[in-house]
Amino acid sequence: MPDLWAARLPGGSDPRARAFTGTVAWDWRLAAADLRGSLAHVVMLEQVGLITPGDAALLKQGLHQLLAEVASGAGPWNPDAEDVHTAVEEELTRRIGEPARRLHTGRSRNDQVALDLHLYAVDAARSLAARVDDAIRAVADAADRCQDLPMPGYTHMQRAQPVTVGHHLLAYAFMLLRDRERLAQVAARSAVSPLGAGALATSTLDLSPDAVAQALHFRAVYDNSLDAVSDRDFVTELAFACALVLTHLSRLGEEVVLWSTREFGFVTIDDAWATGSSMMPQKKNPDVAELLRGRAARGLAQLAGLLALQKGLPMAYNRDLQEDKGYLFQAHDAAEEALAVVPGLVSALHFNPTALSAALTEDVLATDAADRLVEAGVPFREAHGRVATSRSWDQPGPADPSAVADSLRARDRPMGPGPQSIARQLCRIRDSIARPV
Amino acid sequence: MPDLWAARLPGGSDPRARAFTGTVAWDWRLAAADLRGSLAHVVMLEQVGLITPGDAALLKQGLHQLLAEVASGAGPWNPDAEDVHTAVEEELTRRIGEPARRLHTGRSRNDQVALDLHLYAVDAARSLAARVDDAIRAVADAADRCQDLPMPGYTHMQRAQPVTVGHHLLAYAFMLLRDRERLAQVAARSAVSPLGAGALATSTLDLSPDAVAQALHFRAVYDNSLDAVSDRDFVTELAFACALVLTHLSRLGEEVVLWSTREFGFVTIDDAWATGSSMMPQKKNPDVAELLRGRAARGLAQLAGLLALQKGLPMAYNRDLQEDKGYLFQAHDAAEEALAVVPGLVSALHFNPTALSAALTEDVLATDAADRLVEAGVPFREAHGRVATSRSWDQPGPADPSAVADSLRARDRPMGPGPQSIARQLCRIRDSIARPV
Amino acid sequence: MPDLWAARLPGGSDPRARAFTGTVAWDWRLAAADLRGSLAHVVMLEQVGLITPGDAALLKQGLHQLLAEVASGAGPWNPDAEDVHTAVEEELTRRIGEPARRLHTGRSRNDQVALDLHLYAVDAARSLAARVDDAIRAVADAADRCQDLPMPGYTHMQRAQPVTVGHHLLAYAFMLLRDRERLAQVAARSAVSPLGAGALATSTLDLSPDAVAQALHFRAVYDNSLDAVSDRDFVTELAFACALVLTHLSRLGEEVVLWSTREFGFVTIDDAWATGSSMMPQKKNPDVAELLRGRAARGLAQLAGLLALQKGLPMAYNRDLQEDKGYLFQAHDAAEEALAVVPGLVSALHFNPTALSAALTEDVLATDAADRLVEAGVPFREAHGRVATSRSWDQPGPADPSAVADSLRARDRPMGPGPQSIARQLCRIRDSIARPV
Amino acid sequence: MPDLWAARLPGGSDPRARAFTGTVAWDWRLAAADLRGSLAHVVMLEQVGLITPGDAALLKQGLHQLLAEVASGAGPWNPDAEDVHTAVEEELTRRIGEPARRLHTGRSRNDQVALDLHLYAVDAARSLAARVDDAIRAVADAADRCQDLPMPGYTHMQRAQPVTVGHHLLAYAFMLLRDRERLAQVAARSAVSPLGAGALATSTLDLSPDAVAQALHFRAVYDNSLDAVSDRDFVTELAFACALVLTHLSRLGEEVVLWSTREFGFVTIDDAWATGSSMMPQKKNPDVAELLRGRAARGLAQLAGLLALQKGLPMAYNRDLQEDKGYLFQAHDAAEEALAVVPGLVSALHFNPTALSAALTEDVLATDAADRLVEAGVPFREAHGRVATSRSWDQPGPADPSAVADSLRARDRPMGPGPQSIARQLCRIRDSIARPV
Repeated sequence: MPDLWAARLPGGSDPRARAFTGTVAWDWRLAAADLRGSLAHVVMLEQVGLITPGDAALLKQGLHQLLAEVASGAGPWNPDAEDVHTAVEEELTRRIGEPARRLHTGRSRNDQVALDLHLYAVDAARSLAARVDDAIRAVADAADRCQDLPMPGYTHMQRAQPVTVGHHLLAYAFMLLRDRERLAQVAARSAVSPLGAGALATSTLDLSPDAVAQALHFRAVYDNSLDAVSDRDFVTELAFACALVLTHLSRLGEEVVLWSTREFGFVTIDDAWATGSSMMPQKKNPDVAELLRGRAARGLAQLAGLLALQKGLPMAYNRDLQEDKGYLFQAHDAAEEALAVVPGLVSALHFNPTALSAALTEDVLATDAADRLVEAGVPFREAHGRVATSRSWDQPGPADPSAVADSLRARDRPMGPGPQSIARQLCRIRDSIARPV
Repeated sequence: MPDLWAARLPGGSDPRARAFTGTVAWDWRLAAADLRGSLAHVVMLEQVGLITPGDAALLKQGLHQLLAEVASGAGPWNPDAEDVHTAVEEELTRRIGEPARRLHTGRSRNDQVALDLHLYAVDAARSLAARVDDAIRAVADAADRCQDLPMPGYTHMQRAQPVTVGHHLLAYAFMLLRDRERLAQVAARSAVSPLGAGALATSTLDLSPDAVAQALHFRAVYDNSLDAVSDRDFVTELAFACALVLTHLSRLGEEVVLWSTREFGFVTIDDAWATGSSMMPQKKNPDVAELLRGRAARGLAQLAGLLALQKGLPMAYNRDLQEDKGYLFQAHDAAEEALAVVPGLVSALHFNPTALSAALTEDVLATDAADRLVEAGVPFREAHGRVATSRSWDQPGPADPSAVADSLRARDRPMGPGPQSIARQLCRIRDSIARPV
Repeated sequence: MPDLWAARLPGGSDPRARAFTGTVAWDWRLAAADLRGSLAHVVMLEQVGLITPGDAALLKQGLHQLLAEVASGAGPWNPDAEDVHTAVEEELTRRIGEPARRLHTGRSRNDQVALDLHLYAVDAARSLAARVDDAIRAVADAADRCQDLPMPGYTHMQRAQPVTVGHHLLAYAFMLLRDRERLAQVAARSAVSPLGAGALATSTLDLSPDAVAQALHFRAVYDNSLDAVSDRDFVTELAFACALVLTHLSRLGEEVVLWSTREFGFVTIDDAWATGSSMMPQKKNPDVAELLRGRAARGLAQLAGLLALQKGLPMAYNRDLQEDKGYLFQAHDAAEEALAVVPGLVSALHFNPTALSAALTEDVLATDAADRLVEAGVPFREAHGRVATSRSWDQPGPADPSAVADSLRARDRPMGPGPQSIARQLCRIRDSIARPV
Repeated sequence: MPDLWAARLPGGSDPRARAFTGTVAWDWRLAAADLRGSLAHVVMLEQVGLITPGDAALLKQGLHQLLAEVASGAGPWNPDAEDVHTAVEEELTRRIGEPARRLHTGRSRNDQVALDLHLYAVDAARSLAARVDDAIRAVADAADRCQDLPMPGYTHMQRAQPVTVGHHLLAYAFMLLRDRERLAQVAARSAVSPLGAGALATSTLDLSPDAVAQALHFRAVYDNSLDAVSDRDFVTELAFACALVLTHLSRLGEEVVLWSTREFGFVTIDDAWATGSSMMPQKKNPDVAELLRGRAARGLAQLAGLLALQKGLPMAYNRDLQEDKGYLFQAHDAAEEALAVVPGLVSALHFNPTALSAALTEDVLATDAADRLVEAGVPFREAHGRVATSRSWDQPGPADPSAVADSLRARDRPMGPGPQSIARQLCRIRDSIARPV
């Protein structure tokens, strides 16, 4: 970053130090946010009279041009720049000359970087929420199609009571609805502008932080400048939201893997969503589902890293925080990539009624039998014991399909597997995602 | 848990298996929640006619009696019980006899445990929020007292620009305000009742989950029973909120440690909040602050454990989830204990104006000098360079106190260290905590 | 800890500070190590003439007495003491008077605590290694019994090639052998004495650190005193070794859960190692295996916490390190408890030949067919393709048992499932654990 | 990976599934290991007669050619290949035709990938050990130069007793020596060959796993094929070794940051190893040291991710394991990059004798005074109390330099700061790194 502090440290940096501190190779994805933030800053500088309308026009024109190039996929103009912010400012200077040297007026890297991260986080949270909606929609549609296809519900991976495929799948839709809610809250909490905090203590110049926030459609400005430049709560919250999304999807992944074993045989996966083996000619493997399952570890890792990074940092800005971007980008990517395969994977699952029906053995109706005794006045603990000892439960035969159907109908209650309950659940889900975050 | 499934597995458990699966030693703290949940369940069972008013009265009386004993500090009545839920049910049976055997009607351990955790989480989140309020109040009061005491603000632990002690401390108040917000959201999201979900698939009995939720002042019932028994999002969110609280406090801890070094000398800690050395007679150490700093690792650890625990679990309930309580309790305790020392520690800090003033060297005014050039029309980048080379910055002398005062006044802007800004910040903080979560 | 620094800070500690910094409730398990360390210290002090033989005799007698009481299960003599070290020193003073006030000669809490941790770690690593040996023995015995019972081997949870139950189980024995090796290395690396380092900088007294190390059968003394008091590598390594043990056992847990599903049906678990359901009368659940699976998260959590704790701590000792004990004890307990159930659980598994045989479908022989073509000169890639298209692999019938037997014999090669290979593997395992760590 | 299983799943993969499962963009760095592994495999296939000498010659020639290209920096020949292994095999086929279709004889992706990872891990561990040696050398040289420059040693960041800069720096050398030892053990434990394990169950072909191990200078072959393809202990151990290296360097980073504050002023950092500020003209910041401090979070994150990834995976290979590479590469890079700046950073530190001397206040000699009383027969606890109350310790004046020198000489003991001790320490360190790992 020679230009920025060449006057103070004229000897230049050791190349090893530059290599260690430079980030342009991986923070380039902040380029659009950086340009948008600079545009809002220019608008404000002009408004408060710190730059002339002429300079402002040139700056805006230059920034818009660069933004257009970034939108078209331009990489760093100078790959040797220290970071995305320097790369942008240098290129702007190359293009429009002296006015570019006024751009940083009243601004520090610290509040600039923080603003860029806020812009990134708001967009990422919203984009993830849209992906979550796609996943919910796919899960709900699959559940709709299979809403009355009976299957055994499991606890401890042992058959428990009859549910339906639709009922089972909808549990994932409700997990994802909570993810959506959290992402919306993260987006809202991230939409607070730090610009004007300067390095840590605001500026003696007559800036208008509110004007910047308004230009960016942010809901507020930070209250305290030291907090503004050192806060990474919103980054950590976004990583946490990603970690929970990934945890939910890992559970779905595990179930698809289980269901597609020969032993369960509950689903057949479309060939296009399966893979083979390099050695074993007969193999058809559920790799996408396995990777969904494994991917949750990435969310956890980024979150743990982010928290460890911030632990014990004194005020206000410390360079350690540069590392936040690596965790944030990876958490975002991990979640976005995982969400992106959910609609396809879910559509590629073909549920096998024969296998599901064969798995509905008599034992799944034992609880209903105990309930009948309760209704006849037997205390529950006694009813439980009587049913438990009424027969051997070790080798149950197939359940009577009509008894299964009765059981499902008898549990057409709030939260349950019956048709009216499922209809309500579907309705609630579709309403909830009717409008984007 | 012999009584619960003795009929099914009459041979009894291997003692090693019992030792490994039993939890009463550490889940006893759920006892009150368990009793409150059972009370709501009884109210509902009576309401829908599944138990008689007579049995309900006996059950309620028995449960209230046990609740009173727990409130007075009773330990597990039977320390060999498998877990808190069994210990409670067994004791109730011992006291009131047969009606106790009707208590579990329409209920499973799975929805019962989930409900207990929800009750615990709501209370924990609110209690933590109250502790956060105490901490905010203490920090704000300290800031109020030192609102115009100048000190150097730091970035990269290098002196940067003048702020005031009040300004600096208030940054912590705003961090904690975000914690408060998050805890309030966790409390709200936790107040959803799973009761009625049964083991995973509701019940054929005519239960009223809504009545339970109302009795507990919960805002809703889960939508899907499989989700209801397997969801631990709210536990994970609470652990995350604790992890962020602890991260913030670790930063405060680090600063108190720094400030109380002889080299900084910014604060003297009351003897009552310091410790000595077993070997070195002269020592006075800031142990409380050090432990605050270190404690953040506990939050991170519990959160990482909780996420790893849930990864890849199939539906619905799996026994792995029993381990969630260890993480939850530790995260809660770690945060509560750390918050509990903040008011005392902050009050025990005596800021040393002489040392603070001596640390305000001329270099902290360099940015103001550049701003002056900008106001005179010099592009910022040039202004920065001119100031950087205007003198050597390696051995700055003391700053003129009136220049420091001018600088602070000149930054009496939004987020800044000036008097009106601090007044606004204090006002905003005190308003925000005026009403408990 | 009034006695220790009452002269320096005579006002006493704030009760809130004492509550936050005190640890005697959970560090009492270091009592034996503390007493053994003090005994070695006394031996050395007498040897170098810093205490008289008379005082030494009294001190040794007193310490031995306390050690005997601790061995018999004594709790902290003074539960209000700050920590185990203070509780011990105070009690010793109560019992033998003035000589106890000479015990701390040339010693600091810092090297004392470090020594206690080293003693604890050496013992814990060895005790864990012995538990690992028990687990290996149980797994090897089970493998021995089932060494020629065929089962499908799996990749991606899809049937792949025939192996035997013995072959499959032995994979766990080899994982555990690596754990054993690691624990032995941790024990060795922990057996280095910090005593003599004092607070951080040794002492002007003429101590003999070597004599202490010898008395404790440690292999060396630290080289540098600042390192000696601040090093927690050995604690972290032990936690890591525990985390890997737990990760291995979580895989075994998952397989037992899978195998005991109705769908796989590969094993029946003894009733004494299974659990029932509070609601569903028919249930028999593999809770021990589920908890083994979930327990791995605890190892990960403690390790992450320990690393975060140490990050960025300046030299030499900081109070943050007090928290290391919580992580260490939990990692140790988690691994020890999990290992303790392995022999019983493994012995409680009854493999079901019928189910295993039914799972050996024709497809598991496809790779052998490709190998035959390769032996006839067909390039492997072509052979793979020919077999893949030679038939439909979607609904394979049962494999001919004699073909399965042939396949196993044909793979009686290094690492493989054949009888000679298994005999070699068993031999290697039993040799490796013949002598304790 | 169409060629590999096109016959089995002829419809091709969904592009979304391909995008999610493909890895060539980031696993290309295994290319050299993959080629070396294939070369060893070809040597063995020829040796046991499974390929002809002619085919073997062509294969070796082709593989050597590709290896040379990779060594010169070639990227993936086909960036659309699924992964590095497919990219290599496809390109080999393009170059040498049919013999390439024999390369995979007796081999599976599973043992191939495992072997590549082993080769990578051995190299990475050794290369890291060499970097550690460079860092140790730099630290030892700096310590040598400053071995008798007194400075206060610290505990709790409070001045404790006099040490020397050399003594203090050597503590880091000893931490790094332990890292070296661990890396050497990881390298040794990684040098075990899985090739021959096939997909999970070896092969019916007459392969020689030993020949492969010898060709690669590995010390052994796995004992059990299921373990061979699913073991990632060595990857996790390497990540752990990296995490500890990074933790040590984070402590050094923190100290450099502290020492270069104006308040401590112990070191001046060469301008070439410092950075300035974009806003504040006077700033000179220790960014390299800050990033060293923060970097430790990356090691922790990768390790936590790796452990979570493996938790609960059934035998043998599961696709989840693909993700191990991301964690491994990042842990390796994080440690290697951090180690790479240590020599430069340490050389760029100029210790300031004046500031160090000013920090040696009288209080650092208090322990020596207590020791004098002990030598005169006063019990230590009384001596400690007497010194503590002999004067006020709150505002100590400067220590007499000759008294400091006496104190250091008096502590010329094992582990201590005296000249002979330091000479021994330096000698021990230099001996230890005399020969590369």
